[in-house]
Amino acid sequence: MTQPHDQPGVFTAQEMLQHWKGHRALTRRTIERFPDDQLFSFTPGAPLRTFGDMMLETVRMIAPSLHGTRTGEWNFKLADTSAIQDKAALLAAWDEADELIATTWPHLTREALRGVVPPLPHLRALPYLVDNEIHHRAQGFIYLRLLGTEPPAFYEREATSPA
Amino acid sequence: MTQPHDQPGVFTAQEMLQHWKGHRALTRRTIERFPDDQLFSFTPGAPLRTFGDMMLETVRMIAPSLHGTRTGEWNFKLADTSAIQDKAALLAAWDEADELIATTWPHLTREALRGVVPPLPHLRALPYLVDNEIHHRAQGFIYLRLLGTEPPAFYEREATSPA
Repeated sequence: MTQPHDQPGVFTAQEMLQHWKGHRALTRRTIERFPDDQLFSFTPGAPLRTFGDMMLETVRMIAPSLHGTRTGEWNFKLADTSAIQDKAALLAAWDEADELIATTWPHLTREALRGVVPPLPHLRALPYLVDNEIHHRAQGFIYLRLLGTEPPAFYEREATSPA
Repeated sequence: MTQPHDQPGVFTAQEMLQHWKGHRALTRRTIERFPDDQLFSFTPGAPLRTFGDMMLETVRMIAPSLHGTRTGEWNFKLADTSAIQDKAALLAAWDEADELIATTWPHLTREALRGVVPPLPHLRALPYLVDNEIHHRAQGFIYLRLLGTEPPAFYEREATSPA
């Protein structure tokens, strides 16, 4: 992977954060739109997971990824989220992760923001988190449509749901 | 949207391109993995589109987005891709779009790369294309699993399929 340090970067750290926050707002609205009794039970068929499970994976990755990015010390022991079984608890965990992102971001240097995932050196850790969130949210869009519910608009990224 | 021009950017234009190329390689492998007789016919249910249709949308957006980004002149008239009805034709259109990306990229200034989509000024045009591709490819992963086919690994981004 080339690292031409003499080239100007295109988007700033603050803009990277804004981009992610827009996605996180959209993903939160996607979770909210699920019927509570389907979030941790519905799948379109084997071997697919529930959307709730996919979102818990997304949440669990954030703390170790931010810690690894900030300190360079990676520990892939993930938090136990097995107690989270409904929408309210998932949204609370989602908001807690948002807080962690907001408080950690100012401490991330440019070099840290460019950091890779140690076992996957072709992947930048923070862009990978965003890409993984987009990936699983998109699968939730399929689930919602199969449940007869319109997903939120993909191009809306506001923190609060548009009227 | 803040545009702090005095802040250094995190990733260079070349790194943005590498990130996208990695995703495009993965998306191409996802298309390849579809059974040819399902690519333009299978959906898990109404009102979902076929994966072939979603990928044609992805392809159609590239030329006008690159043109708008490069010149500042936006024209949302999309190419007619209705003649593309099978995997070989879709992959040929995919590769043609890759060529267009490769030949256009060196002409994109930093300001152009930061450009927004005119009717959606909160969205940066080129990151939006990548996000949209990740979004629809993820939906193809669901389709593949429902068809009994393992999707390619999400974390692999090489241009050629790993053994």
